[in-house]
Amino acid sequence: MSTPVVTPRDPLLGAVLAGVEVFDLAQPLVDGMPCSPNHPGFKMSLTRRHGDMVRADGGSAASEIIVTGGHVGTHIDALAHVSHEGKLFGDVDCAEAQTGGRFRSHGVETISPMVCRGVLLDIAAQHGVPALPAGYGITAQDLEDAADRAGVRPTPGSVCLIHTGWSRWWDDPAAYLGVQTGVPGLTPDAARWLAQHRVIAAGADTTAFEQIHPGQGHATLPVHRILLVEHGIHIIEHMRLTELAERGVAEFTFVLSPLKIVGGTGSPVRPLAIVSRCHD
Amino acid sequence: MSTPVVTPRDPLLGAVLAGVEVFDLAQPLVDGMPCSPNHPGFKMSLTRRHGDMVRADGGSAASEIIVTGGHVGTHIDALAHVSHEGKLFGDVDCAEAQTGGRFRSHGVETISPMVCRGVLLDIAAQHGVPALPAGYGITAQDLEDAADRAGVRPTPGSVCLIHTGWSRWWDDPAAYLGVQTGVPGLTPDAARWLAQHRVIAAGADTTAFEQIHPGQGHATLPVHRILLVEHGIHIIEHMRLTELAERGVAEFTFVLSPLKIVGGTGSPVRPLAIVSRCHD
Amino acid sequence: MSTPVVTPRDPLLGAVLAGVEVFDLAQPLVDGMPCSPNHPGFKMSLTRRHGDMVRADGGSAASEIIVTGGHVGTHIDALAHVSHEGKLFGDVDCAEAQTGGRFRSHGVETISPMVCRGVLLDIAAQHGVPALPAGYGITAQDLEDAADRAGVRPTPGSVCLIHTGWSRWWDDPAAYLGVQTGVPGLTPDAARWLAQHRVIAAGADTTAFEQIHPGQGHATLPVHRILLVEHGIHIIEHMRLTELAERGVAEFTFVLSPLKIVGGTGSPVRPLAIVSRCHD
Amino acid sequence: MSTPVVTPRDPLLGAVLAGVEVFDLAQPLVDGMPCSPNHPGFKMSLTRRHGDMVRADGGSAASEIIVTGGHVGTHIDALAHVSHEGKLFGDVDCAEAQTGGRFRSHGVETISPMVCRGVLLDIAAQHGVPALPAGYGITAQDLEDAADRAGVRPTPGSVCLIHTGWSRWWDDPAAYLGVQTGVPGLTPDAARWLAQHRVIAAGADTTAFEQIHPGQGHATLPVHRILLVEHGIHIIEHMRLTELAERGVAEFTFVLSPLKIVGGTGSPVRPLAIVSRCHD
Repeated sequence: MSTPVVTPRDPLLGAVLAGVEVFDLAQPLVDGMPCSPNHPGFKMSLTRRHGDMVRADGGSAASEIIVTGGHVGTHIDALAHVSHEGKLFGDVDCAEAQTGGRFRSHGVETISPMVCRGVLLDIAAQHGVPALPAGYGITAQDLEDAADRAGVRPTPGSVCLIHTGWSRWWDDPAAYLGVQTGVPGLTPDAARWLAQHRVIAAGADTTAFEQIHPGQGHATLPVHRILLVEHGIHIIEHMRLTELAERGVAEFTFVLSPLKIVGGTGSPVRPLAIVSRCHD
Repeated sequence: MSTPVVTPRDPLLGAVLAGVEVFDLAQPLVDGMPCSPNHPGFKMSLTRRHGDMVRADGGSAASEIIVTGGHVGTHIDALAHVSHEGKLFGDVDCAEAQTGGRFRSHGVETISPMVCRGVLLDIAAQHGVPALPAGYGITAQDLEDAADRAGVRPTPGSVCLIHTGWSRWWDDPAAYLGVQTGVPGLTPDAARWLAQHRVIAAGADTTAFEQIHPGQGHATLPVHRILLVEHGIHIIEHMRLTELAERGVAEFTFVLSPLKIVGGTGSPVRPLAIVSRCHD
Repeated sequence: MSTPVVTPRDPLLGAVLAGVEVFDLAQPLVDGMPCSPNHPGFKMSLTRRHGDMVRADGGSAASEIIVTGGHVGTHIDALAHVSHEGKLFGDVDCAEAQTGGRFRSHGVETISPMVCRGVLLDIAAQHGVPALPAGYGITAQDLEDAADRAGVRPTPGSVCLIHTGWSRWWDDPAAYLGVQTGVPGLTPDAARWLAQHRVIAAGADTTAFEQIHPGQGHATLPVHRILLVEHGIHIIEHMRLTELAERGVAEFTFVLSPLKIVGGTGSPVRPLAIVSRCHD
Repeated sequence: MSTPVVTPRDPLLGAVLAGVEVFDLAQPLVDGMPCSPNHPGFKMSLTRRHGDMVRADGGSAASEIIVTGGHVGTHIDALAHVSHEGKLFGDVDCAEAQTGGRFRSHGVETISPMVCRGVLLDIAAQHGVPALPAGYGITAQDLEDAADRAGVRPTPGSVCLIHTGWSRWWDDPAAYLGVQTGVPGLTPDAARWLAQHRVIAAGADTTAFEQIHPGQGHATLPVHRILLVEHGIHIIEHMRLTELAERGVAEFTFVLSPLKIVGGTGSPVRPLAIVSRCHD
C-alpha cells in the first residue's frame, strides 16, 4: 500500500500536518498523589486482570474501577463549583440548581471544548527563582511584568496559564499541598486583571490557584469568587507547566476537553499546548 | 481595555484564530447511560452541596465523588486492555506487566495525546440507511467503498472513525447495547484493512467496535486482538459521530487526550474533530 | 493444654455455651446481584492480590475496594431514609438534618444494636404456596392469621420478619426485582398492625418490603412513611428467610448490628436468628 | 393492645428477655477517620437528599454511595487476606484462589457468624497505664498475667480481645496510626499463646494488632502469618474496647457477623459484647 499524497484544503489540518509539537499539561493520576483534603483521592483498581477469564480463542481482557473526585489531579472547575451568598455565576440560585443531585445549570458538561489561544506568564522566572516562595501572593503587577517580559498578553477568549514553579513538589504531597507553609497564588487584584483581559479560563501549577496563607487552609477563596462567580471564568488547577516554562513557550494553541459529567462541578482533564514545529 | 492586535507567527495558532469549528465526539456521562455489563457503570454523587459549609465571607463550594470504569462512556482502549495467549502487544508478558496492580507497560498513561488527521467513513450512508442493522458485519470492502465515496483515505498516523448510525439508540440502553439483537461492527478483515493503512487509532459509535452477533455477547473479540495485540492500534468506543456524519465532514483535525491513569487499561475521553471555518 | 472447665455465672453466656443454632438471614454481596435501580450496585475489586508486593519474609497481602449503596443487599433503613412533607420521624426538619452532607439526626449510626426477640410470620405458608404471587398485598388479616398459625405474636421491642418466599428468585434479578410483574409486600393496614404491636423493626425477603404494583415502580411508598416517618420503626430488606421458614422457626433471638456509617441512611447488615439447640 | 405475656421455652431467648447489656465494640465510620495507607479510606456521599425528588404523596427519600476498603474501620480479616510463600491457610495456593478477581477459598463470606464466648485481656490495666506505650510488644507472659488478673482464660472456640488503651487516640489519626512512633501490639510468642488456646478470632483496639516498630511501617507481619496462615484464626482490628475495659467486663457473649462480600479479604463489622444485666 503506498501512502496517498495528502493536500488538505483545510488550513488547520495543513498546519497540523506540517508538524506540531504537543506539550502535555497534566500530572499523572495515581493513588497517593497530592490531593486536597476537601476531595476524595484518586483510586484505580484492576477489577479483572488477564487470566481471570480466558476466552475460547485465548483472548483475555483487563479492566478497572476508578474512584475519584471531580477536583482531583489536573482538573477544571465548572461554574457550578463555587457560589457566593447563595448564587452562582449569572445570579443563578444555587439551591435550585443543585436540587436533584446534579447541577441543572453551570455543570461541567456545559463547558465547551477549548481550542483557542493560550499564553504562559512565568512569574517564577520573572522573580528569578525556580519556584515562588510558599504563600507568596501574585499581584496584578506581577502578571503585567511577566506579560511584558514575554511579549505576550492574554486576549479575549484566550486562556492564561501562570507558572509558579510549584509542581516541582508534586512528588512530595505534603510540601506541594503546603498546609503548614502556604502556597503561592493569585491575589484578588491579579484575578481582576485576568477578568479585565476577558480570558475564558486561567490555570496554574498549584492546588488552589489562589494565594494560600500558612496554616489557614482554604478559609476564604476570593479569587474563586471573582473568577467563577463574578466573571464566569474557569479555573484549572494542578497543571504541569514545567516543560512550557523551560522551553520558554509563551504563546500557543491551547486545547482542553473536559469530560461531560452531567451536573458535575469539575472534571479531570489533560490539557494540551500545541505549537507549530518550525514557524519562522 | 482595547483588544491588542494579535499576529501570531505560529501557523497553527494562525489557523485557529482564523476560525475553527469544533465537533464534540463524546457522549455525556450520566448514571443510567448504556454500559457494558463487563464494566462498572458511571456514578457521580455530590459530596458537598452549596450551603453544606458556608465560609465566613458567604462563599460555598460543591464537589463530587465519581465512580466509573475506564471503559465507560466514550473511551479509549490502552494496549494493556487485551492480551492473546498471555501476551500484550509487542510480546509483552501480561502476567508480569500487571503484577503490582497496575500495568507497568502499555498503560493508558503511555498514550501520547493525539493531534492528527482524522477521517470519517460513513458506512450507514454508504448503505443508504440512517443506522446499520443490528449484528451487521462491516467488511473491508465497506470501508473501501465508503472511503471512495467520501474521497478520503486513512493515512499512516491518522485516526479512522466509523459511522454506523448506532448512537441514535444511546437513550435506549437495551437497544443500544443490543445484547439480544447484536450490534453492527467491524469484521476481522475490516480490522486488517485499518492495520494496513497504519492508523494509530480507530473508533466507532458503538459499544464494542466489533461485530456483535445476537445473543452471543462478547464471546470472542477478534478485532480487539488484531488491532490492540497484533498492531498496537487503539480503539475508541461509544463515540458520538452524528454531527460529523450529518454535516458530511470526512476529514478533520482529530484531538484526543486520554487521562493519564497510571497503569490503567482505558480512559474516558472527549475527543474532538476540528475544521477551519471557511477554507475554500 | 487442657481446656479449662467453664462455668459462667452469666445466664446468657450459659445459654450460648449450652449450644445454639445460628441462622444467617443475609444474602451474599456480589457484583450482579439484584439491586434497586435507585441505588448504586455492589462492586468489590481486589486492589492488591497476593504476589503484587511480597515482603522480605515471603508474606503477601490481598485487599479490596468496595463500592456500594447503603440500601444494597440485605440492609436496614435508618429513620433518615424517608421523609414526608419535609419531615423525618419526630418532626425533624429534613433540610436541616441533611445540611453538611450527612444526617445530623436519625443517621444509621444512631441505631442501637438489636439483641431482642424476633418472630417470623410465614405468609407464604399461610397461603399454602412456596412464594406469594407477584404484586400480592399482604394485609393485617394475613399477619394476624399467620401469627395465629405459628402461635407467636410480635411483642413491644421485638422484630417481626415476614416470609413471602420471594428470595427464591434472588438468582434471577429481573424476576426478583419484579419491575414488570410487581412484588408481594405489605399494605398500609399491615404496616399499621406492626406499629400497633410496637416492634422496633420489621423485615422481609423482598426488595422494598411494600406491595409493589406491576409496572409502577416505587411511585409511592406508604408503608415506608407509616413505619419510618410516623412510628420510627426500621425496615430490613432483601433478607434471606428460607431456612427459618423451612425449619418452621417462628420465635428466636434476633441480632442485628448495623455499621455505624455516620450520617448515613442505611447499612448493609448480616442479621442473625439464634435458637438454643435443645430446649425442651 | 395489652402486651402479651411471653414465656419463651428457649433458654437463650429467656436470658435475652431477662435483660442484657450490649457493648458496641466498633468505631464509627466517617470520612477522615484513621485508616492504614495500604487501604482506601472511607467515603460516604449522599446521592439523593430529601427534596431532590418528591413523590406525588409528599414523600421523599435520601440515600448514599459508599466507598471503602474491606480493612477499614473496625473490621475482620478473612483467611484470604494474608499468604506466606504463595500459600493461604490449609496450604491453599493463593494464585489459584484469587484467579477471577475474587477469592474462591477463604473469602470473607465463608466466615460463620460468631456467637460465642469472648474474653477481654486488659494489658494496659495489667501495666497500670491508661494506654500501652507506642511500639510496645505484648508478650505471652503479658497475656498470661492479664488472664490471671481477670480470672478468665480463652477457651477453644472463643474470641480473645486485647485492650491496649490505644483507641484513646482514635480522634487524632496521626497519633493513632503511629507511623513515626510505632504502635503497641502482639509479638509472635503472644500470637502462639492465642493459637495454643485455640481461639477462633482475636482482636485489639489498634490498626494492625501486631507490634509496629517506629518508622518501619508494616515491613513484616509475623503475627498475621501465625494466626491467619498457620492457624486459621481471624484477626479483628480497630476495635473500640474502652467501655468493656472501664467496666471491667472480662467475659461475655461475643457476636460478630461479617458481611458476606463474596471472595473478599475482609469486612467492616460492628461486633458486640453482651452480658446479662443482673446475674449474681
